[in-house]
Amino acid sequence: MSETFTACLIIVGNEILSGRTKDANLPFIAERLEKLGIPLKEVRVVADEEPAVVKAVNECRAVYSYVFTTGGIGPTHDDITSECIARAFGVRLIRDPRAVKLLQSHYEDPSQLNEARLRMANIPEGADLIDNPVSRAPGFKIGNVYVMAGVPRIMQAMFEGIAPGLRGGPPVLSRTVSTRLGEGVIAEGLSAIQGRFPDLTLGSYPYYRIGMVGTSLVARGTDVARLDAAAAELRQMIRALGSEPIEAPPKE
Amino acid sequence: MSETFTACLIIVGNEILSGRTKDANLPFIAERLEKLGIPLKEVRVVADEEPAVVKAVNECRAVYSYVFTTGGIGPTHDDITSECIARAFGVRLIRDPRAVKLLQSHYEDPSQLNEARLRMANIPEGADLIDNPVSRAPGFKIGNVYVMAGVPRIMQAMFEGIAPGLRGGPPVLSRTVSTRLGEGVIAEGLSAIQGRFPDLTLGSYPYYRIGMVGTSLVARGTDVARLDAAAAELRQMIRALGSEPIEAPPKE
Repeated sequence: MSETFTACLIIVGNEILSGRTKDANLPFIAERLEKLGIPLKEVRVVADEEPAVVKAVNECRAVYSYVFTTGGIGPTHDDITSECIARAFGVRLIRDPRAVKLLQSHYEDPSQLNEARLRMANIPEGADLIDNPVSRAPGFKIGNVYVMAGVPRIMQAMFEGIAPGLRGGPPVLSRTVSTRLGEGVIAEGLSAIQGRFPDLTLGSYPYYRIGMVGTSLVARGTDVARLDAAAAELRQMIRALGSEPIEAPPKE
Repeated sequence: MSETFTACLIIVGNEILSGRTKDANLPFIAERLEKLGIPLKEVRVVADEEPAVVKAVNECRAVYSYVFTTGGIGPTHDDITSECIARAFGVRLIRDPRAVKLLQSHYEDPSQLNEARLRMANIPEGADLIDNPVSRAPGFKIGNVYVMAGVPRIMQAMFEGIAPGLRGGPPVLSRTVSTRLGEGVIAEGLSAIQGRFPDLTLGSYPYYRIGMVGTSLVARGTDVARLDAAAAELRQMIRALGSEPIEAPPKE
């Protein structure tokens, strides 16, 4: 598997840390990045506090090919991500004329574009804007950091805009084989298969659904033939243990 | 608000980073910790890779009062959290006789307690066990780090076992006032209220539901009277802007 490209997601938001809001951006970004061959290696959720955001951004941008952030670019006082990114990069936060123009195009009545909304045009100097086809207020890219909105449908639209410009490796693919057997029964055989497929990552995930207990075995990697070979060995192992593989894992 | 006690959650698991599994532990732990007066300040999701887990554990245990981990303590080869914690603390990983006994009590047929399952009795030397009333295989506590299972119902049972032993500050409480007004309209008044309530944290969260667009304003803090006063000011601000506050925010 290519390890050349890696990504980190930083979720900025007290509402996630308090449990009030359930984040919906992680799974979307994770799945899209796998298709782009840029595996997500770390996620951090940080508070709406400047030191926390600056520290996370600077630590992560030094380690990963790409850093994506979600949240904190709206018009209210608790939206501090843009200031934090400017601080992290040691650049000024400026009222970006391109962003002002975008906001002007969104509000028919010019009086609606008040000072609070104009804060959404404050962008670190030197950043490129990220298009927001939903509500105009842009995200931005500076260095290897991509700053996006927290509202899922806006974030998703922003991501689709930047995706074609991201360089990645071969897409990360997966094969899943499920079984009613417990993890303890299959662990030894699974470990042996992992040993024969060092180029793949094999994971074992117990599931508990109404009336159903079992384990999903997931092989991840970039080579279709190797994935198919590993899946065949997983099925064979399950049969050797006296059970039948389940091809379609039960829905979560 | 007391800032004496803080918590960090480390979620260990490739399945979360790939988007395959949606984490359900963060909201549970966040809400329980607020009641215990131990606000969750950071969450990290890290891969099933020793350097990543060790680094996250050592960074976070130095900064926060408590670190909780979920995931990676099962019987398969990709369950590496216990080894990583031992490495992070610089202690040996031992086959803990107390944990072996717990596992023996769980399997009626002794032959079921194979080597893979016995791996779940490998515990860092000097750790205290955390009870698992669901399936016996214990979690453990070492220093200020609490290591729990990833399966939500097991994690929840483990958490309820350790909760009475956690020292926290006053419970973090909240008041929510919603409105059909947009964030840009209320931002200025909200910021002024935040200025008058520096002891509270005011957050603004836009919502988009079928047929409904608006904003939920959330005040968080530990003093009931102050929270009620802030909520009253939020309602007053909304009325002054020509709208009506919505007491029950729409369900997510």
